[in-house]
Amino acid sequence: MTNQQTIALDAMGGDFGPDVVVPAAGLALRERGAGLRFIFFGDEARIGPLLAADPALNAVSSIHHTDKMIANDEKPSAALRSGKESSMRLAIDAVKAGDADSVVSAGNTGALMATAKLVLKCLPGINRPAIASVFPTTHGDTVMLDLGANLTCDAAILSQFAVLGAVYAKTVAGVEKPTVGLLNIGSEDVKGPDQLREAAAILSTVEFPGEFYGFVEGNDITKGTVNVVVTDGFTGNVALKVAEGVGQMTGHFLKEAFMSSLFAKLGAALASGALKRLKKRVDPRFYNGGMFLGLDGICVKSHGGMDTYGFSRAILVAADLVEQGYNKKVAHEIAQLMAQESQLAHENGKTEETAPS
Amino acid sequence: MTNQQTIALDAMGGDFGPDVVVPAAGLALRERGAGLRFIFFGDEARIGPLLAADPALNAVSSIHHTDKMIANDEKPSAALRSGKESSMRLAIDAVKAGDADSVVSAGNTGALMATAKLVLKCLPGINRPAIASVFPTTHGDTVMLDLGANLTCDAAILSQFAVLGAVYAKTVAGVEKPTVGLLNIGSEDVKGPDQLREAAAILSTVEFPGEFYGFVEGNDITKGTVNVVVTDGFTGNVALKVAEGVGQMTGHFLKEAFMSSLFAKLGAALASGALKRLKKRVDPRFYNGGMFLGLDGICVKSHGGMDTYGFSRAILVAADLVEQGYNKKVAHEIAQLMAQESQLAHENGKTEETAPS
Repeated sequence: MTNQQTIALDAMGGDFGPDVVVPAAGLALRERGAGLRFIFFGDEARIGPLLAADPALNAVSSIHHTDKMIANDEKPSAALRSGKESSMRLAIDAVKAGDADSVVSAGNTGALMATAKLVLKCLPGINRPAIASVFPTTHGDTVMLDLGANLTCDAAILSQFAVLGAVYAKTVAGVEKPTVGLLNIGSEDVKGPDQLREAAAILSTVEFPGEFYGFVEGNDITKGTVNVVVTDGFTGNVALKVAEGVGQMTGHFLKEAFMSSLFAKLGAALASGALKRLKKRVDPRFYNGGMFLGLDGICVKSHGGMDTYGFSRAILVAADLVEQGYNKKVAHEIAQLMAQESQLAHENGKTEETAPS
Repeated sequence: MTNQQTIALDAMGGDFGPDVVVPAAGLALRERGAGLRFIFFGDEARIGPLLAADPALNAVSSIHHTDKMIANDEKPSAALRSGKESSMRLAIDAVKAGDADSVVSAGNTGALMATAKLVLKCLPGINRPAIASVFPTTHGDTVMLDLGANLTCDAAILSQFAVLGAVYAKTVAGVEKPTVGLLNIGSEDVKGPDQLREAAAILSTVEFPGEFYGFVEGNDITKGTVNVVVTDGFTGNVALKVAEGVGQMTGHFLKEAFMSSLFAKLGAALASGALKRLKKRVDPRFYNGGMFLGLDGICVKSHGGMDTYGFSRAILVAADLVEQGYNKKVAHEIAQLMAQESQLAHENGKTEETAPS
């Protein structure tokens, strides 16, 4: 039997609020069969009727009413100052208080990250949380981080991200010995900025629950060259948005091509089953769920425009992280990494002392 | 009648050397009708017979024999030191000496950039050259730079890139008033690294042959939100490779989908004309030709794995830059920019002096 877990849901986040969040919870519950409980934070008058329409969901859910919410364009600093009674903040507070095991929100990313950092804090040994997500590739799925939480990252932080990603790939995605690559612009060791070369030196030396592959380039992400791609939040966010953009453009061109002649229309009709399966393979809804890794609490961000199916996937991402005890394993691995780093620093110190001048 | 121009070709660069470079020159010549002359640098024993097979090309071509060439994995520093008699170096020297108007090579990017910088030098007022290329979007083509010449770029350099890109869009791509965006991870003014915010401040103030749009995100590239996307070489190279990777993955998935059933195969056969047109719209060969902008001489890099058609496109990119007098126009615009910047600095100085403390 699955262990029981409770998910705090920011019912007011995203473009559709409870209209998507409540049925998505129902869908996730049916997908899982059992084991999930929900606390919905938001407007009871909107959440209540939606819950009543789904008795199975209603039986495992409660509502924490608030009429405050964080606007999509609210600055993180403003959300921190004046959002204390918002559905987003209260849902995060529930994780901190131990009333929930995780929180899922489709609200404003900046506000969610700032609030989650303030309330949940980082795991011991982690300097900065990262946003991670899973991507389809020609060889299985790949997890990439950071996707936008940190503009710049030094070598120590990139090494921590490697551990965060490797533990995810191992415990949640089930890869025995995950390979980890650092996103760079050339595969030769000499290339790239200092912090990448320093991070490569650390990851080549220390033991962590993955195997350091070396540098990878932008096209390696979709090739599935490695199980985990590590980068700073600026580069990761650009890569994510470029990939989304190329996907949308290709879809657009494909649609135009299939509408361009009678033959093409007939062809598309004949191939419709195959095209639907293709669409499913790269469905952004399936891959929805930005994980805020490195926090002392599980927090998952859904894309704001997601429908019921998409939001249900983000809920399942949170449920998997909790069920696999992701944070406990990460805390353990980070402690190991720190011990090795201090040992390494100690040895380097000794070497320097005894080295001939 | 078109003016006559001479293109120096590194016949030994790329995966196929003269077997691609010589017929590509023939193709470019036929595409243009007239006006092109070529000097082939490389192994006469391989180039000669290929030229003899194309009398029209042979009539406008000469061979500069050398048996030295730069290896694909040669480090830029080694290429500079020991590559003085290489086909790549001699082709660049020909531009410096005025024997050719431009140079095209499919050789090693790092070596080509380092050699071109050393030999040709930057245009007055330009601190660093950038690699620029044209991309298909849902709304016409977009030019993006830098794609890998500079790991990091300060605000002044990014502003120069904006001018380099805008002059390209205006004079070569024929856009009346090109819009220029700075690649960032959020469209709000507060977001992003300092150098991007400083560059935005400069570009919002000065007059240049384009219109500053503001910040754009990764997905704006393929949307065609702006005519020119400006970024540093690290981010630009990742974006380029991610786009290539997603394109390849989609093509791979599409092929698999069309082979997955008899219906799908029939559908693909019926839609084959439309699918071919689609392929042409995003053909990397059509968009081949990385322009090294900002140098005092036209230098274009072809992808190393390109076929004859692809390499011919890179030759035509060089021919267009020469024909439109790109470098003269850039030099003029950069001088204007510098005058405005020094005026701006002067005014700011005065303001600071008279400002109440």
